[in-house]
Amino acid sequence: MLTGQQYKESLKDGRMIYLEGRLVDDLESEPALAVPLQVIADGYDKYYSAQPDAKNPLTIAPRSPEELRDRIPVITEMDLLLNVTYQSLMTLQVAAARLADHAPEFVPRIQAYVEDARRRDIRVTECITDAKGDRSLAPAKQHDPDAYVHVVERLPDGVVIRGAKMHISAAAFGHDLMVMPTKSMKLDEGDYTIACAVAVSSPGVHITNTTYHPRGGDPRDFPVSSTNSMPDSMVIFDDVFVPTERVFLDGQTAHAAVFAHSLGLWERLGGVSFMVNQADELVGLASLIAEANGTAKIAHVREKIDEMMIHATLLRAGLEAALANAHATSDGFYYPDDMFTNVTKYVGAANFSSMVRHLHDIAGGAVVTAPSMADFDNSDLRPLLEKYLGTGPGVSGEYRARLFHAIRDTTADALGGWHHVTNVQSGGGLFAQRLVTRKNYDIERARALALKAAGLAGA
Amino acid sequence: MLTGQQYKESLKDGRMIYLEGRLVDDLESEPALAVPLQVIADGYDKYYSAQPDAKNPLTIAPRSPEELRDRIPVITEMDLLLNVTYQSLMTLQVAAARLADHAPEFVPRIQAYVEDARRRDIRVTECITDAKGDRSLAPAKQHDPDAYVHVVERLPDGVVIRGAKMHISAAAFGHDLMVMPTKSMKLDEGDYTIACAVAVSSPGVHITNTTYHPRGGDPRDFPVSSTNSMPDSMVIFDDVFVPTERVFLDGQTAHAAVFAHSLGLWERLGGVSFMVNQADELVGLASLIAEANGTAKIAHVREKIDEMMIHATLLRAGLEAALANAHATSDGFYYPDDMFTNVTKYVGAANFSSMVRHLHDIAGGAVVTAPSMADFDNSDLRPLLEKYLGTGPGVSGEYRARLFHAIRDTTADALGGWHHVTNVQSGGGLFAQRLVTRKNYDIERARALALKAAGLAGA
Amino acid sequence: MLTGQQYKESLKDGRMIYLEGRLVDDLESEPALAVPLQVIADGYDKYYSAQPDAKNPLTIAPRSPEELRDRIPVITEMDLLLNVTYQSLMTLQVAAARLADHAPEFVPRIQAYVEDARRRDIRVTECITDAKGDRSLAPAKQHDPDAYVHVVERLPDGVVIRGAKMHISAAAFGHDLMVMPTKSMKLDEGDYTIACAVAVSSPGVHITNTTYHPRGGDPRDFPVSSTNSMPDSMVIFDDVFVPTERVFLDGQTAHAAVFAHSLGLWERLGGVSFMVNQADELVGLASLIAEANGTAKIAHVREKIDEMMIHATLLRAGLEAALANAHATSDGFYYPDDMFTNVTKYVGAANFSSMVRHLHDIAGGAVVTAPSMADFDNSDLRPLLEKYLGTGPGVSGEYRARLFHAIRDTTADALGGWHHVTNVQSGGGLFAQRLVTRKNYDIERARALALKAAGLAGA
Amino acid sequence: MLTGQQYKESLKDGRMIYLEGRLVDDLESEPALAVPLQVIADGYDKYYSAQPDAKNPLTIAPRSPEELRDRIPVITEMDLLLNVTYQSLMTLQVAAARLADHAPEFVPRIQAYVEDARRRDIRVTECITDAKGDRSLAPAKQHDPDAYVHVVERLPDGVVIRGAKMHISAAAFGHDLMVMPTKSMKLDEGDYTIACAVAVSSPGVHITNTTYHPRGGDPRDFPVSSTNSMPDSMVIFDDVFVPTERVFLDGQTAHAAVFAHSLGLWERLGGVSFMVNQADELVGLASLIAEANGTAKIAHVREKIDEMMIHATLLRAGLEAALANAHATSDGFYYPDDMFTNVTKYVGAANFSSMVRHLHDIAGGAVVTAPSMADFDNSDLRPLLEKYLGTGPGVSGEYRARLFHAIRDTTADALGGWHHVTNVQSGGGLFAQRLVTRKNYDIERARALALKAAGLAGA
Repeated sequence: MLTGQQYKESLKDGRMIYLEGRLVDDLESEPALAVPLQVIADGYDKYYSAQPDAKNPLTIAPRSPEELRDRIPVITEMDLLLNVTYQSLMTLQVAAARLADHAPEFVPRIQAYVEDARRRDIRVTECITDAKGDRSLAPAKQHDPDAYVHVVERLPDGVVIRGAKMHISAAAFGHDLMVMPTKSMKLDEGDYTIACAVAVSSPGVHITNTTYHPRGGDPRDFPVSSTNSMPDSMVIFDDVFVPTERVFLDGQTAHAAVFAHSLGLWERLGGVSFMVNQADELVGLASLIAEANGTAKIAHVREKIDEMMIHATLLRAGLEAALANAHATSDGFYYPDDMFTNVTKYVGAANFSSMVRHLHDIAGGAVVTAPSMADFDNSDLRPLLEKYLGTGPGVSGEYRARLFHAIRDTTADALGGWHHVTNVQSGGGLFAQRLVTRKNYDIERARALALKAAGLAGA
Repeated sequence: MLTGQQYKESLKDGRMIYLEGRLVDDLESEPALAVPLQVIADGYDKYYSAQPDAKNPLTIAPRSPEELRDRIPVITEMDLLLNVTYQSLMTLQVAAARLADHAPEFVPRIQAYVEDARRRDIRVTECITDAKGDRSLAPAKQHDPDAYVHVVERLPDGVVIRGAKMHISAAAFGHDLMVMPTKSMKLDEGDYTIACAVAVSSPGVHITNTTYHPRGGDPRDFPVSSTNSMPDSMVIFDDVFVPTERVFLDGQTAHAAVFAHSLGLWERLGGVSFMVNQADELVGLASLIAEANGTAKIAHVREKIDEMMIHATLLRAGLEAALANAHATSDGFYYPDDMFTNVTKYVGAANFSSMVRHLHDIAGGAVVTAPSMADFDNSDLRPLLEKYLGTGPGVSGEYRARLFHAIRDTTADALGGWHHVTNVQSGGGLFAQRLVTRKNYDIERARALALKAAGLAGA
Repeated sequence: MLTGQQYKESLKDGRMIYLEGRLVDDLESEPALAVPLQVIADGYDKYYSAQPDAKNPLTIAPRSPEELRDRIPVITEMDLLLNVTYQSLMTLQVAAARLADHAPEFVPRIQAYVEDARRRDIRVTECITDAKGDRSLAPAKQHDPDAYVHVVERLPDGVVIRGAKMHISAAAFGHDLMVMPTKSMKLDEGDYTIACAVAVSSPGVHITNTTYHPRGGDPRDFPVSSTNSMPDSMVIFDDVFVPTERVFLDGQTAHAAVFAHSLGLWERLGGVSFMVNQADELVGLASLIAEANGTAKIAHVREKIDEMMIHATLLRAGLEAALANAHATSDGFYYPDDMFTNVTKYVGAANFSSMVRHLHDIAGGAVVTAPSMADFDNSDLRPLLEKYLGTGPGVSGEYRARLFHAIRDTTADALGGWHHVTNVQSGGGLFAQRLVTRKNYDIERARALALKAAGLAGA
Repeated sequence: MLTGQQYKESLKDGRMIYLEGRLVDDLESEPALAVPLQVIADGYDKYYSAQPDAKNPLTIAPRSPEELRDRIPVITEMDLLLNVTYQSLMTLQVAAARLADHAPEFVPRIQAYVEDARRRDIRVTECITDAKGDRSLAPAKQHDPDAYVHVVERLPDGVVIRGAKMHISAAAFGHDLMVMPTKSMKLDEGDYTIACAVAVSSPGVHITNTTYHPRGGDPRDFPVSSTNSMPDSMVIFDDVFVPTERVFLDGQTAHAAVFAHSLGLWERLGGVSFMVNQADELVGLASLIAEANGTAKIAHVREKIDEMMIHATLLRAGLEAALANAHATSDGFYYPDDMFTNVTKYVGAANFSSMVRHLHDIAGGAVVTAPSMADFDNSDLRPLLEKYLGTGPGVSGEYRARLFHAIRDTTADALGGWHHVTNVQSGGGLFAQRLVTRKNYDIERARALALKAAGLAGA
């Protein structure tokens, strides 16, 4: 296993990482990259073992419903990159099982890759969403054939791929990129049916970075985003060679969706667990700021907090239902129920902005007008700010200002905007989540109930 | 145990039952009463056993989480009166356990009553909500001291009570009325702290009946309400004598709320199970009528059905979460989690009208304009109606008309109105359900999460 | 002009009117028909003038914005049949102007018909919506060619039509049926491009009736629906001959939509005016019942009434905006702005069920469980009901019961269901109303604003 | 009148302006202050006239409904400081009229001040909201008597005030601060009943600044906030002397609310006009990005845009209704109707976050993950970004990226957060806006309608 320091060293491999147009030689030289780098390095140190055969236990899926449940607090605490690494490796394992009958040649490759990744203690990010070009056209019918990642050349020892993948969190910090088709493919889309592991340092890989990390100002005004940011990337494959042993599917159009489906099983738990936590956190912020404002007992304030609590409890019910109805893979690994997680994500996504509206309504305009924490450092201003922002015994001006900054940072600034967008978009947008519901809902049972009510049960 | 016929005979006991101002001598003489009477009698026959010691197994609570779950389909099938009888008897048992330390004199009485009720195979309804008079005043401060049921005289062998209880379903069909305080009481409200079992036939008991049973027309136009109605009553206690052995609390103000709280444990499961079923039934109706209208593939119709499915699944998730987190009484009886059932009921109540709006939007104006089934009996009209209401192969005019009538009956006529109101009101209105959430939510955990996010975890 | 009595006599013309399968010889013999008949007859008496040339002034459209505004209270008071008669005659006039260049042969016929209808003081209903059969198919492509009304034979002196029209309010009470195409037509749909006036008494016309008029019970329990009901009809044209002078379009497919578009101008004002009134009435009911329940000062009750007031005011704003932006036809007749009326109708339709939910939440379960007014007639019950339903000085039991019945009748019984459905469906369902918005909104202006914000104003 | 340059010079008056703890000597030295300074200076130049007696015409209110309507596009174009100056001066004039009978001594002072302000062409900001301390306590009952601005000393030639005012936009850029009581005052709150004009340069005035102006990065990534930001201030009065001729109310508690009420008349139009414009702009952004993504014809995308158009049109209807029902002051100045503007603001505030959710749902995750415009400057990246972000002919990668940045800047970054909060908070939060509705709604008319429906019209 690697220590945090060894991990940092391992990234000095010639990778092409960009931030605001600059090619970044040293990730630690840019605060917006150095902070997440350190968080990931800390994760390495936390799970490090000097034993020769040691492997990170979190890269293995739960083997019982209880283990599945116990994994939740671990997931919400661990860094995002470790989480996606776990998802990537589990996805490969499940995909291998599913390909055993139809494309057995890939199975030993996948198994060897997973084993090696665990042994080397590397981090792997998932690359799914393509650039997509004109969305009304299929991959093989695009104006630009590169709108979806595809094989442009097949060589004796590997393939050359071209295209771009979007919205890849933490791509700059992993070792490998797990490329997989974003959807099922048609018969003439064999070149687009490519799954493989690409080293970030491969020639031709370019990774942009966009981040909500604060660009300046006082870190205390950004208590969350200054310590816990993670950039999103566009990963461009500009004719990248991938050796044969890292190619996990190539042209088997009938099986193009196996990887994306497998990934679905493992990414759910993290997404829903985070949503449940976030909903509770918003309730907590509302409760704290109402108390600090001296408005906690006003009827309409209490009712808004009630609604936030009801929403948070509803999401938790969805998670509980998904766990109580967990399913096992053929290998005996447990994952939460698809229908319940999906509906929970949908409801969490659809109502996030309303919950934030309640929080803003309760907190007041000072969310965006409270003085900076640096203003408190000014000796002329500090006593005035303490005096006028404090609201009585036990609620100092600084305490209240810090609550306002936490609310602004989380819901009404760059990170807040990121939450607004990603809550809606994670899982593909609200409509995509509806489609899953449509597919999984037991409509025949519902129709039978209705026919019975209508006295048409025999119809 | 009683057969259905024996049950019917047992109600000929001089009870004072009113329907639209008429004192009803024979329940079978009024269609609006005869129909529910027969449904209850059928329930008797269904569970009848000729064994001398036989007792209805459904009057005992589940003894494991699995039994709790298995009870759900039974509850949604059984008649309402049997369900409330079960709730009443379980409530008494739990109350007895809770009173053991503080008011032990009532415990043997309660146990004897429950045992006797089971043995005699009687039906018992719950009487909670008082008339309440001016709601801004406490029971002992009302303009009219009878606004809440109370003891007006204490005799050597019993008490005399006066007052009225509202919204009592099936009161006219039970043998006993389980009277209990609607809320906790203050020290000076001893006379209002009365719980007791009152025979429906007791002198001074008057029972009005209000029903959504169709008053006329063709029963086929009311496929649900003509076969499955149940009147709601106002039960008036006009100086009714209750013998001592049927008095279960009298003046112990500190324990006034024990019965209502105990009842809460048992009535939840039925309420939430029905809501989940009803939501699925609405999905089914929407799916059937969209298909019959030939609009099932139109995007906006599909999306409205999606929303209905998401809502139904969310309610089911709440039920699943409540079952997965079931608790046991000290006697080892299992009941679903309070927080999850409450939130589920709130969300079901708050969104029922939106789901109905979707159904009406999908179904079209014929929900309220479709010809009566009797129009189909007219030989001149029938071929014309079949021709113009049918929409193609497999969708006859009569089939489609019956779907419209089922939708109207369930959501846009007297029963529909009853659903609209009782969905919101069951459990005391939306605000009362919020209060339960407010009380049970783990706000300290939420505040800790928020303080941590704000960097104020030590504050 | 006709008196009410003359009007009633004029309907004894052999028309084929059905109610629940019965062919009705005498409309006054069925309460569900006699009540609306009398309401219409009263309208005749109200506007009756014995002057030889007198004509009903309400069959002429406003000639200024002020007249347009003044017409609103008149419309909300007048009977529905007079209102649709006005709409029908104005529609014909506007259609005549639009057809002048393209199909001039119809213009004198239409003008003569309108003149004659005014002179004879008859009532005319609008027949638009066809049976439609399979909605995914065009009129000429249906399994059954009669799914849309069409010409089946052309004779020297007229045409024979066949088909059915749906959702026709008051059809049984008018003299003529104004048939018009429900939509624009394609080149091969000439036979479906038929507009004409059909006498209700024509051989082959069959009219079913469906109504929310109470089927029994005490009229006092149905204060609105027992006095102000109006049946909806399915009007079937079973090979009906229409003389040439009553044919207003026949085969000119390019102009098929002229009548429906013209109708749109005139029916809006009534629909929106009614919605605004209804929203205010719901506020009033909520205010009265909260006061009667003694809950008018509770915070959450006040907030729910606030929301109802905001909704009602918003609808009123829409009406005000439509009047302030009124347009004139080429004849100088004024009609309200299309965009604003449509959005107002959409918002009124989409939120009606939420407003009703608030009302039910405020009013309580007694909306569906309050004793009948007939129970108050029982001398034993009356004092008990007065005692227990009253809530203090000034709020008698009977007064409160009557409020509950008004709320139930209007929102939670047959009429309530009719409102739920027709609010959503009037104008063709929520989606149809969105389409109008989509068509009329000034999207180019919005895009220009956005481009400017993005710094892309020159793009 | 002043030129822009003269205006800039006029601010070099020793004022105490703070940004992130730094005392700012030269406003032009800080980009976050220099940008809005220039915008205001440009406004001076735009309206500059060299005529000796010239005055800015926009500091006078409209004198007819037509002028009122014509003012709307002017207001949405002019800079915020000119707008609040206009509001301040009009407020003073209306207040003078209202005080004429009760506190005539202030009238000539106010008139002289207004005249002088116009002559000197200065800018004046409104200072209303106090620090408020413990919100459950009145001003005179606070733990800290300075929680509301009050007079601490009365001198022969003026008064000394102490306290702080919150959420003051553009305070650092004006010449005077118009201080007024935030609410009505009780008899013992005479010292808190102070209205006066305070020069920003007065000793003891301290002004913090909080801004959504971007702290770094490429201005092209912030197309709106980098060019059009305005800081919000906390204005602290640390024992500030105000000369008698600038005191407009001092101790007349009965008239404390006159200024705030007068201000209400003038600030509405701007707020609602901006909301209407913003709603249209969001529609435009949604339309442009859907087109650029190639998803403009997908049904669910169109429906989301429909909802945004309906919302925008509804707000416009509210504005139209407010204009159509405009009222005049006793001086003949016109202002829009209170009820309609308030309801419009409420609905705009309550739904802003839902509209943004639709926009984010339509736009996709690239709102927060699109590469920076600086990435386009990198010659290696540019062709790749153009290739993979473009979606076909007419939609270049750069164009699409700029749309994403405009959406992020406006709705999902610092400015976006400011909009989320201020939309809800402007006017005092959603509850405060409800209170206005509650106060102005014609509830008696609504109750009369309801009584009539219930057949209780004589009750």
